[in-house]
Amino acid sequence: MEIKSKIQVAILGATGSVGQKFISLLSDHAWFEIAEVAASERSAGKLYKQAVNWILSTPLPDEVANLEVKECEPNLKSKIVFSGLDSGVAGPIEENFAKNGYIVISNSKNHRMDRDVPLLVPEINADHLELIKTQNYNGGCIVTNPNCSTIGMVISLKPLYDNFGLEEVNVVTMQALSGAGYPGVASLDIIDNIIPYISGEEPKLESEPLKILGHFRQNHIQDEEIKISAQCNRVAVIDGHLECVQVKLKKKATKEEIIKIWKDFSAEPQKYNLPSAPLRPIYYFYEDKYPQPRIHRDIDKGMAVSIGRLREDKLFDYKFVVLSHNTNRGAAGGAILCAELMKAKGYI
Amino acid sequence: MEIKSKIQVAILGATGSVGQKFISLLSDHAWFEIAEVAASERSAGKLYKQAVNWILSTPLPDEVANLEVKECEPNLKSKIVFSGLDSGVAGPIEENFAKNGYIVISNSKNHRMDRDVPLLVPEINADHLELIKTQNYNGGCIVTNPNCSTIGMVISLKPLYDNFGLEEVNVVTMQALSGAGYPGVASLDIIDNIIPYISGEEPKLESEPLKILGHFRQNHIQDEEIKISAQCNRVAVIDGHLECVQVKLKKKATKEEIIKIWKDFSAEPQKYNLPSAPLRPIYYFYEDKYPQPRIHRDIDKGMAVSIGRLREDKLFDYKFVVLSHNTNRGAAGGAILCAELMKAKGYI
Amino acid sequence: MEIKSKIQVAILGATGSVGQKFISLLSDHAWFEIAEVAASERSAGKLYKQAVNWILSTPLPDEVANLEVKECEPNLKSKIVFSGLDSGVAGPIEENFAKNGYIVISNSKNHRMDRDVPLLVPEINADHLELIKTQNYNGGCIVTNPNCSTIGMVISLKPLYDNFGLEEVNVVTMQALSGAGYPGVASLDIIDNIIPYISGEEPKLESEPLKILGHFRQNHIQDEEIKISAQCNRVAVIDGHLECVQVKLKKKATKEEIIKIWKDFSAEPQKYNLPSAPLRPIYYFYEDKYPQPRIHRDIDKGMAVSIGRLREDKLFDYKFVVLSHNTNRGAAGGAILCAELMKAKGYI
Amino acid sequence: MEIKSKIQVAILGATGSVGQKFISLLSDHAWFEIAEVAASERSAGKLYKQAVNWILSTPLPDEVANLEVKECEPNLKSKIVFSGLDSGVAGPIEENFAKNGYIVISNSKNHRMDRDVPLLVPEINADHLELIKTQNYNGGCIVTNPNCSTIGMVISLKPLYDNFGLEEVNVVTMQALSGAGYPGVASLDIIDNIIPYISGEEPKLESEPLKILGHFRQNHIQDEEIKISAQCNRVAVIDGHLECVQVKLKKKATKEEIIKIWKDFSAEPQKYNLPSAPLRPIYYFYEDKYPQPRIHRDIDKGMAVSIGRLREDKLFDYKFVVLSHNTNRGAAGGAILCAELMKAKGYI
Repeated sequence: MEIKSKIQVAILGATGSVGQKFISLLSDHAWFEIAEVAASERSAGKLYKQAVNWILSTPLPDEVANLEVKECEPNLKSKIVFSGLDSGVAGPIEENFAKNGYIVISNSKNHRMDRDVPLLVPEINADHLELIKTQNYNGGCIVTNPNCSTIGMVISLKPLYDNFGLEEVNVVTMQALSGAGYPGVASLDIIDNIIPYISGEEPKLESEPLKILGHFRQNHIQDEEIKISAQCNRVAVIDGHLECVQVKLKKKATKEEIIKIWKDFSAEPQKYNLPSAPLRPIYYFYEDKYPQPRIHRDIDKGMAVSIGRLREDKLFDYKFVVLSHNTNRGAAGGAILCAELMKAKGYI
Repeated sequence: MEIKSKIQVAILGATGSVGQKFISLLSDHAWFEIAEVAASERSAGKLYKQAVNWILSTPLPDEVANLEVKECEPNLKSKIVFSGLDSGVAGPIEENFAKNGYIVISNSKNHRMDRDVPLLVPEINADHLELIKTQNYNGGCIVTNPNCSTIGMVISLKPLYDNFGLEEVNVVTMQALSGAGYPGVASLDIIDNIIPYISGEEPKLESEPLKILGHFRQNHIQDEEIKISAQCNRVAVIDGHLECVQVKLKKKATKEEIIKIWKDFSAEPQKYNLPSAPLRPIYYFYEDKYPQPRIHRDIDKGMAVSIGRLREDKLFDYKFVVLSHNTNRGAAGGAILCAELMKAKGYI
Repeated sequence: MEIKSKIQVAILGATGSVGQKFISLLSDHAWFEIAEVAASERSAGKLYKQAVNWILSTPLPDEVANLEVKECEPNLKSKIVFSGLDSGVAGPIEENFAKNGYIVISNSKNHRMDRDVPLLVPEINADHLELIKTQNYNGGCIVTNPNCSTIGMVISLKPLYDNFGLEEVNVVTMQALSGAGYPGVASLDIIDNIIPYISGEEPKLESEPLKILGHFRQNHIQDEEIKISAQCNRVAVIDGHLECVQVKLKKKATKEEIIKIWKDFSAEPQKYNLPSAPLRPIYYFYEDKYPQPRIHRDIDKGMAVSIGRLREDKLFDYKFVVLSHNTNRGAAGGAILCAELMKAKGYI
Repeated sequence: MEIKSKIQVAILGATGSVGQKFISLLSDHAWFEIAEVAASERSAGKLYKQAVNWILSTPLPDEVANLEVKECEPNLKSKIVFSGLDSGVAGPIEENFAKNGYIVISNSKNHRMDRDVPLLVPEINADHLELIKTQNYNGGCIVTNPNCSTIGMVISLKPLYDNFGLEEVNVVTMQALSGAGYPGVASLDIIDNIIPYISGEEPKLESEPLKILGHFRQNHIQDEEIKISAQCNRVAVIDGHLECVQVKLKKKATKEEIIKIWKDFSAEPQKYNLPSAPLRPIYYFYEDKYPQPRIHRDIDKGMAVSIGRLREDKLFDYKFVVLSHNTNRGAAGGAILCAELMKAKGYI
């Protein structure tokens, strides 16, 4: 798929940690071009390089550094806006943009569970994009990306779900610090320590997969019925959420079958060869000690999911370990992949 | 309980990390006195302070520093020997001591599952000590301490087991580095990282509780039948194993009942007021973010278990978080408590 | 020295990290008793346990938990107030207390360099306490404690200064996270990282020792003239500032002489046997790899200074490594020692 | 510069941490191609993927995975060998290769100070390559790369040396864990800690720059005479050595002049546009908090040096902070750059 001229996009919440990641990933993007950055009133009017406390190890792209920060008002020239807004303000701002005809692709939680908003994982539920036709936003729309702890797990579950059916899922997470934004977790709270609680995280992990794996029928999503239990912990890792997952399947499956369907898994992002799509959504590791956050989080542009340690379980059918990069696949990268899918399928 | 003159004890594997912890905890002990230290041939003959690479932050006690390191041969004058031997050599050495009339209290895994060897947690199965009468060791005996990841969990389970019965237990651990001994885990492997595997750990965690909660009847232990599934991870924490536990009970229980029986739990170590016994075996924390390894591992001399986040679960009945200090309660401290119980009950 | 009844004290800034440390160290203090806690308007009126986000690993003392937090106004009944106030507000509040007759012992930087305020390190310049007689505070007074990075170094320098004279001092610090307060340094900024800058720290380290080592003559302090250069770094250590120090002496000294005068160093806190005084202000370690923050920071109640690696230097005369606990010796503990010295010498 | 067909190279010590880095960096190299890997007897005969415990986060290249590991004997077909051998064995093996006509480019310390062996930093002393003509190795030769803590500092010093002259250099390092190889530093020794000592490091840092900045005259190197004092610390950072440097210059220089000559610095690797050369050898950062290891170590392929915080000093003329990647620029990457320079200048 070739693009003649790049599509201009804007980033809302551009100075925050998710906003910065959007900028980093969209710099040199094959299809999109950052035309505008918008943030809170406090930043508006400044040059981006003056407004931002750049925290990424990749450099602040020159072409963005000198953009003037705009307010998050629907008077931007870019029709496509990526939202990295804080959930404290994202809800009404995103709605306001949609109502004014903008295509809003959001990483915030506010509209994820709205019944007419796709909670999109391009490898899983591309068909849910049809939901936006049911939105009452005067031509605009809102599409959302799941929570960073949901996405790795649900990609690992999708091939199991398709092939064997899923009855129960149990998950314990060990989540990276970048998931908490910046400044996020105080160093005094996490060095030589673990925090066995992340506010609001467990309910998301228990509910979002049901919508993502749900069926689009007659203009709405019928949630899947799977019992999910989640326990979430914060650990001293910079990037990469590691999750211990147990599953009870509806049909029998051998270990070899499962590994094969994971390795063979491929979906629309791969078919369309989307710019941000991993070559393979899932990598399976046979070494007992893998996957590990620092070693594997960046695989395939940080957009692939790494799985290992598949083994039979005494209480469920199988247990395994899943890793995914929480700010690439799990946040800005995942949202960009959504936009790419929308472009490839003609929604943009 | 008063002791007229202190009982002389020896430490096998005295230069290793568990051996060092034995020395640290037995220095100034109310009942025991370190009379001898023994280690491998390589160390034998040297002064302890020359043989050891002391890694603890508590100082090497003066009275031990100048002891001559002996070989691990049953010609020691101390009748009671604490074994911190590496499991690669512990098996036959401990047997040899027992056969020669020594009381061996071991932190090694080798004899834990021997049918005539108590796997002792003084708060749980003090009655299992009777097993040593069935041992064929010419007056000597072997008593063992469970694995460091078992002990915190099983103490949290004991009151549930007694009051409501246990059908299923699911556990995911985040284990401290000191559990791997010294030098143990390479820093390059764990900073900004997690290792989702600890060799041999999961089977121990799935089997040891069944023996510990088992019943002593007719001179043998009848293992309890509970289905346990364990997943073990190594994280960048110095001391303190944190575990996410889920339980399915045989009888209904309210959250308040469970917290109450935990807080009220007390057993023989508390009754005898053993020197190393925590005032209370279990502390419950109501704050969502607790317990945490760095904050709570040292509670009550590092001998208590901290629990928090009890909540209903969608797949089991309840889930909660358990923390215990892996080298105090989970290794040397636990073994010393075993010896204290044996003294209090007349086995020594 | 015996105290018939404990002296009631108040803590200003009681909910902050230094305030918490004051509370932790004054709980069960031999001479002082926490009668009142005061903090910002936001906290005033609440019970302390409700106002505070307790971050220490030692438990919040019961007797303080239920105190009502008062405002930082000079209507407290305790005549002695310890100030852990943030430097943004400490200046006028502390003055206000002093003017109203209170003895203010402050850990804040605001009044440290006032010409009539002692910058007190009890082992070094106990005689500077006479300065308070020159203060115009209606019977009240202000006494200050140096910056956390100053105090370890200056204690290591004092015996050198007394015995050999000091011409030049060069220091590079690696400072712990707790020195930045709470929440302080973001975890994303420091894990797998170093920050080679601490705002305002280097000037303090270059100037405070000159006053501390200065001479009290004719009712004022004549600063010592030593050239000091400091470079300050923040590292991923919880507690304990480690400093690489180089010195140029006025007189020749052998390595053995220096180590001896360090080990023999003793001063008024030791003479009076003050409750918080270390048995020995300085511990010298001969092992090349020592001192280390995690291993040695808590020596002698965290009030001693650990030194190691003394060796000749190509540019200065000697170089060595100094460690001191930044929140015990370097903040609340040091301030309490000041108060104890004042009591012992009749200033209280 | 174009290469018609790639030059085959071998790697000695291929399974070690430096060997792995050589493999990672030479995979897809523009000029060189890994034809052979050699290691100890223990590994010889195995496939590389079976012999190695791959510790890098970049994947093991497929084309190397299936190479048979050879012994470190001079019967390899590749004329150019990169040595990542442990210094315990590197000395005679490297000599043996050189004597048999091989071009040995070594990262080991053994031959660095040999009077006829270039200690090469391509940006600094390319002319020292002429030394190899004085070697008695039957057409073979040995070229070495400096210690990882030397290289960043000496690149920062070179422009100062050329423009203003250098009299004294004082340096305190905070060095990354990867500098100690694998397994290297135990995690229990470094988390929440600092080790203020690295065996053998300080003498290297005090002597190597004198040779590197020395003059090639009449077939030998006349060492430069600069007084250097070094203090070395190990900190909990994965990659990237940070160094606090102070310099006394021979001529006056303003801060602006120094920053300008650093930013303008360019040398033979840039002139020849060598494949591993950074675009600019030195990046200067104006923000007080920069450079930082995690943020800046990978700049320009990890081959550039980052400098910041230049400021006047009370004891020397200036002080500043230098960062360089210790396994890229400081080890394998630096050695590869040496080989590229040799190719460009006709020595290969």
